[in-house]
Amino acid sequence: MRLDQATPEQLRQWETELAAQYQAILDQKLNLDLTRGKPSAEQLSLSDALDGILAGDYKAADGTDTRNYGGLDGIKEARELGAQVLGLDAANVMAGGNSSLTMMFQAAMTGYQFGFNGVESAWKNIDGAKFLCPVPGYDRHYTVCEQLGIEMVTVPMTATGPDMDQVEAMIKADQSIIGMWCVPKYSNPTGVVYSEDTVARIAALGKIANPAFRVFWDNAYAVHDLMSNPPQLANIMEACVAAGTEDSVLQFASTSKITHAGAGVAFLGGSANNLNAFRKVLGTTTIGPDKINQLRHMKLLPNMDALSAHMQKHADIINPRFEAVLSKLDAAFADSDLGAWEKPAGGYFISFDTQPNCAQAVVKLAADAGVKLTPAGATFPYGKDPEDRNIRLAPTVPSVADVNAAMDVFEVCVKLASVRTKLAS
Amino acid sequence: MRLDQATPEQLRQWETELAAQYQAILDQKLNLDLTRGKPSAEQLSLSDALDGILAGDYKAADGTDTRNYGGLDGIKEARELGAQVLGLDAANVMAGGNSSLTMMFQAAMTGYQFGFNGVESAWKNIDGAKFLCPVPGYDRHYTVCEQLGIEMVTVPMTATGPDMDQVEAMIKADQSIIGMWCVPKYSNPTGVVYSEDTVARIAALGKIANPAFRVFWDNAYAVHDLMSNPPQLANIMEACVAAGTEDSVLQFASTSKITHAGAGVAFLGGSANNLNAFRKVLGTTTIGPDKINQLRHMKLLPNMDALSAHMQKHADIINPRFEAVLSKLDAAFADSDLGAWEKPAGGYFISFDTQPNCAQAVVKLAADAGVKLTPAGATFPYGKDPEDRNIRLAPTVPSVADVNAAMDVFEVCVKLASVRTKLAS
Repeated sequence: MRLDQATPEQLRQWETELAAQYQAILDQKLNLDLTRGKPSAEQLSLSDALDGILAGDYKAADGTDTRNYGGLDGIKEARELGAQVLGLDAANVMAGGNSSLTMMFQAAMTGYQFGFNGVESAWKNIDGAKFLCPVPGYDRHYTVCEQLGIEMVTVPMTATGPDMDQVEAMIKADQSIIGMWCVPKYSNPTGVVYSEDTVARIAALGKIANPAFRVFWDNAYAVHDLMSNPPQLANIMEACVAAGTEDSVLQFASTSKITHAGAGVAFLGGSANNLNAFRKVLGTTTIGPDKINQLRHMKLLPNMDALSAHMQKHADIINPRFEAVLSKLDAAFADSDLGAWEKPAGGYFISFDTQPNCAQAVVKLAADAGVKLTPAGATFPYGKDPEDRNIRLAPTVPSVADVNAAMDVFEVCVKLASVRTKLAS
Repeated sequence: MRLDQATPEQLRQWETELAAQYQAILDQKLNLDLTRGKPSAEQLSLSDALDGILAGDYKAADGTDTRNYGGLDGIKEARELGAQVLGLDAANVMAGGNSSLTMMFQAAMTGYQFGFNGVESAWKNIDGAKFLCPVPGYDRHYTVCEQLGIEMVTVPMTATGPDMDQVEAMIKADQSIIGMWCVPKYSNPTGVVYSEDTVARIAALGKIANPAFRVFWDNAYAVHDLMSNPPQLANIMEACVAAGTEDSVLQFASTSKITHAGAGVAFLGGSANNLNAFRKVLGTTTIGPDKINQLRHMKLLPNMDALSAHMQKHADIINPRFEAVLSKLDAAFADSDLGAWEKPAGGYFISFDTQPNCAQAVVKLAADAGVKLTPAGATFPYGKDPEDRNIRLAPTVPSVADVNAAMDVFEVCVKLASVRTKLAS
């Protein structure tokens, strides 16, 4: 189906056929869900040994009684695992509670309210303070900025990461840009892995940006590969050291999509200066993270080999679902001009771009037919996709059969919305 | 030893004798610690069944898979336990992570930055926004205010709680007072339980204060009784309902001094309005608390009877230590004018008031002799005890023998500092 070559008569005929197919779907009263970027029960069960894994021994390797108060940075062995995930020294990593989003918010609050270089550097004191947001991106990053009243400016994603020509030009032109969100590996939702050149150019931004500028490097999918010989992400801190910009990047990761999603361990990595500023605020908000849960995680995943073997089990569960989505997309749209997508090598999402002005209509048609999709626009700041094109597909939770059923509905909805949009134009 | 009746010659003789005793203590090279208001290893072991208690069943009572993301309010059964501890309905309680201090900071940030009644009510927009701080009090409450730049004004504690005549007069005179810290039961450090009249008057403050005013009711020792037939704290929310001031109080508690201090469950209680404002901010900082740990706690402490039996075991461990402190204080100072203290019926502390201008000297003498005491001034905002009198004794961690040894040193240090201060005056 190619809309660009279709006659009005052909379009009307397609509309009639597709509307009939859609009506048949409505009659099935489906209840399917492709919205949730979270692990399935089967994946969660891979880590069920966590509860009870301590066998009564609550002592960390250095003798710390993990049951008691204290230890703002987290236990040493957890920091070491976080350091390997993030490509840092353990001294540059803090292990926290169950949410890297919390650490991101705390870091953003540190920057906004208190300043990473003292209160005079606080973003609240910078007129029109802005974050750069590569789009499409992750909605919970945007809500952090919205909550703090930080303006967001978009920059397009490319196959190698954010469009760095634009990023550099914007930062050179505007010293009120004080931050940038990045999901550098298996980007949410596009699945892109930033290229080595992109990583180096992001590391160099600290040389041209406001000294208060911080990249929020959310490496949420650092070890979440879906194929062997996965793409490698260049080490951002090594690039920063080379550029002399160690203070310009804060790194985040967590075990949420490794062990139990709601009960994992989050990590923050950064320069000594950044961590000290962060600790100063964090120390007024808590006496320390849940060290027992950190110790449990280290018993389950004592080293990177154990972690890699564990992630392979996740890939074995997720892969058939991704393959179901991709083969349905291929079958439906490979020979069409109705949409574009990429095959990600890891992560949790497949990003689908419709023709302009169709995404909202697709999501509504699917919802009315009992198939929940992530709201159109959610992958853009303020929920506004200017071309109304991007739809995030998250296939990890449903069964393969349900993914297939949902994608059959998706196909009809995309085709019907596209034809109707074309007819109306 | 009574300084008020002593001649200069007597004082000089005492000084010589005490200095010799102190020198003998120095020679012992002690290493003792009465600073830490935290459970001992023996107390922590009371809850060691927590790890493994789920026996593979991670489902909450309502079927929620606690392993996955979600559930900002915490699981229902945890909210119900928190509700019983705080004297509220479960609908008015949220169960959080491992730190009630974190929930206090988040609530303070909500009030300061975003406002409980919309951004126009945010404390940052109120010129000279102030918190009332009953003194002596808890230093970590003060650091929350300091971090947010909220001015603190002190009000004295009495045997029935804060001096309410002063509190009411101050609030009537100054609408920039937008908060007040309270530890209503076994107050840190005085051990006072607020009287029913005090509770009613605090509940009524909402009628005369700025509408943005919030009492931070940190019920940290709600179930931490050390004797049978313990004093009862009146229900603050019932008093608020009677006064029509339900929005004026936020309540906090946690299991930190019930189960494992660093890995417990915190609770926030309040009106629907307050919780909705809190959720709005919290929801941008996390997807939800560690529900697995909440479920573990509910298996260990499924109801108030189980909780009471558990707390009795804590009391059995703590009581000998409190009795050691109190009998040493009695033997050393009952017939003197060197200090004043009360016997608390629960909590973690014994508060000792020296003669004016002695506390810092006592803490320094003790430190030099290898006995760590909480820094003098720590129980006052900005670390400044205007009369330099208050010392907080925390005997839960050391053994009874170590408590006795430390108190022998404390006696000599108090006497020596008092005599020297008197001689210098």
